[in-house]
Amino acid sequence: MKTHKIAVIPGDGTGPEVVAEGVKVLTAAAAKYGFKLDFTYFDYGGERYLKTGKIISDEEVQELTHFDAIYLGAIGHPDVKPGILETGLLLKIRFDLDQYINLRPVKLYPGVDCPLKDKGPEDIDFVVVRENTGGIYTGHGGVTRKGTPDEIATQVMVYDRRTVDRCLEFAFELKKRRNAESEKSRSKPIHLVHKRNVLTHCGDLWYRAFEEMGEREYPDIPRDYMHVDATTMWFVKNPEWFDVLVTENLFGDIITDLGAMIQGGMGIAAGGNINPEGVSMFEPIGGSAPKYTGKKMINPLAAIEAGRMMLDFLGEHEAAKAIEKAVALTCTKLESLSAGKMGYNTEEVGDMVAEAV
Amino acid sequence: MKTHKIAVIPGDGTGPEVVAEGVKVLTAAAAKYGFKLDFTYFDYGGERYLKTGKIISDEEVQELTHFDAIYLGAIGHPDVKPGILETGLLLKIRFDLDQYINLRPVKLYPGVDCPLKDKGPEDIDFVVVRENTGGIYTGHGGVTRKGTPDEIATQVMVYDRRTVDRCLEFAFELKKRRNAESEKSRSKPIHLVHKRNVLTHCGDLWYRAFEEMGEREYPDIPRDYMHVDATTMWFVKNPEWFDVLVTENLFGDIITDLGAMIQGGMGIAAGGNINPEGVSMFEPIGGSAPKYTGKKMINPLAAIEAGRMMLDFLGEHEAAKAIEKAVALTCTKLESLSAGKMGYNTEEVGDMVAEAV
Ligand SMILES: CC(C)[C@H](C(=O)O)[C@@H](O)C(=O)O
Ligand SMILES: CC(C)[C@H](C(=O)O)[C@@H](O)C(=O)O
Repeated sequence: MKTHKIAVIPGDGTGPEVVAEGVKVLTAAAAKYGFKLDFTYFDYGGERYLKTGKIISDEEVQELTHFDAIYLGAIGHPDVKPGILETGLLLKIRFDLDQYINLRPVKLYPGVDCPLKDKGPEDIDFVVVRENTGGIYTGHGGVTRKGTPDEIATQVMVYDRRTVDRCLEFAFELKKRRNAESEKSRSKPIHLVHKRNVLTHCGDLWYRAFEEMGEREYPDIPRDYMHVDATTMWFVKNPEWFDVLVTENLFGDIITDLGAMIQGGMGIAAGGNINPEGVSMFEPIGGSAPKYTGKKMINPLAAIEAGRMMLDFLGEHEAAKAIEKAVALTCTKLESLSAGKMGYNTEEVGDMVAEAV
Repeated sequence: MKTHKIAVIPGDGTGPEVVAEGVKVLTAAAAKYGFKLDFTYFDYGGERYLKTGKIISDEEVQELTHFDAIYLGAIGHPDVKPGILETGLLLKIRFDLDQYINLRPVKLYPGVDCPLKDKGPEDIDFVVVRENTGGIYTGHGGVTRKGTPDEIATQVMVYDRRTVDRCLEFAFELKKRRNAESEKSRSKPIHLVHKRNVLTHCGDLWYRAFEEMGEREYPDIPRDYMHVDATTMWFVKNPEWFDVLVTENLFGDIITDLGAMIQGGMGIAAGGNINPEGVSMFEPIGGSAPKYTGKKMINPLAAIEAGRMMLDFLGEHEAAKAIEKAVALTCTKLESLSAGKMGYNTEEVGDMVAEAV
């Protein structure tokens, strides 16, 4: 029987609770579709850091490469200064394992309450391809005369052509697959999102690379360009315009949070940090929600969705489809996707999905 | 009779059409409230650039300092490469005249169609204070090996303490005024928006400056911090949380476009580029909308709103209030705020507001 080795990092706050439900559903799917999942748990996160002063070492990150995928709960602890765990753990794994794509499907399931007027599941079904290892996330920059009236701080957004190209290629290939599968996708362009009227160096690099690759390799795929500020407007006003969007790291971070909200919020939104040639990591995109920790009130669907994406990437397409259906069904049964308002507790929701699988 | 000297830059596309209606309304308000407006027109914009190769010179910008305010239509021409007019004209004026605040009221008028479910005028009434002369807009950075596979491009976000402080001070003072005027404002904190978990240098500078100024000078004003990605979610889900937000340039650009959409879109959204000690510039925040040029279909309310903000800054508070009321009334009469769907043409809408004043 085929076995997939999964590194599990439950993390902080409600991370362990939602990951437990994800593992429950994944295990049910494995049993049904005839493969094995071998879970190994790691305690990286805020608690460990507060106890030992250690976040994750280079060796520990390298250990993760012996797995087929990484399943992450949530990172972020109220007693740890913002930035430490995010850069030291989450961003470190993304960078060190060269997970250069952050893939964020934005799909409104039937029965899910959408905050937008007059928009339904037929209007909201697109994917954001976010560059995940470059830009202003690289940490370039610094500070001089800190704490004085003359303090100066800088952050550098940096991109090279290869980093841009490999991200664009992933996006164009995804668009090609979606076009092959659906008439609706074919009717829509691929969008590049940037701010090239102001970020004239980086924006120009992205734009030229997008145009050149599109023209040369994907002449049948219509292309469109949109400023990031305008994109936030159209996500709200005309989400039906979108099928695949590709963008740089920071802009991707911003528009995917907005995307999460229009698909029903953090209760359902998941993402994958993809290294197509290496080890990828899947996570619910919400935070560790400390105030709900241990209360069994948090919605595990986002973690379950992350698990579904993981199975899909591991080649278990049928099992992934079954989970998608089970999640869609569960969405119609919950009173709300928000923590504490679901009408069920965390475990019950996990059970519902597992049974439906 | 008191006279205000206004420099008018109608600009490109539909700019001249909407500015004409703005001038109509401002003139009506001046007649009614007993002051004079002296308009001087400048032809800066895409047409002039295409004819003469000139955008705006240092001397021409300095000439604008002889006016009490600048009234701008729209910048952006389909035949001019993106970035040229934006940086050469709009950003140049903002920077050279040190208009260090971009002030963006986000207010949903009764009768205006909001794309958010279950949100009404009582939920959407806040102001974004955007830093307007620093950050990644400074143009720092560059490109090497352009056009080769080894191309590298950078953009530098740069902030110094003084630039941060003067922006924060403006925001805290505004919050103090709003708190003094309204119980509802008093019930809400001032929000700092950044991405300090990733932009550890600049974010930390903003955060420390915000905390220090708040604690020392405005101890009665509750403070809150929010990541920019999360902010886009809460604009959609809980806009009623906000009263005054302060943020750096790029993040302000993004969240104010989203803000414009939740207040009804580009048909109504206006902003001010403020130099509290110098000459300020007011503009509708929509673009030049080339496809509507000359068709009398564009909505002039945003330009009229920009004019209202201008009068307010010139000290004509009564006249500004009258325009606000007239705009609110007109909103209830239009079928939609979108171009071509108003049920009236551009001039008719201008007439309606002018008469109501
Ligand atoms: C926690 C934070 C570092 C992270 C990011 O900015 O990438 C998060 O917002 C995300 O989108 O995964
Ligand atoms: C046109 C562009 C340069 C400008 C900006 O980015 O500031 C616009 O989006 C705005 O918000 O006024």
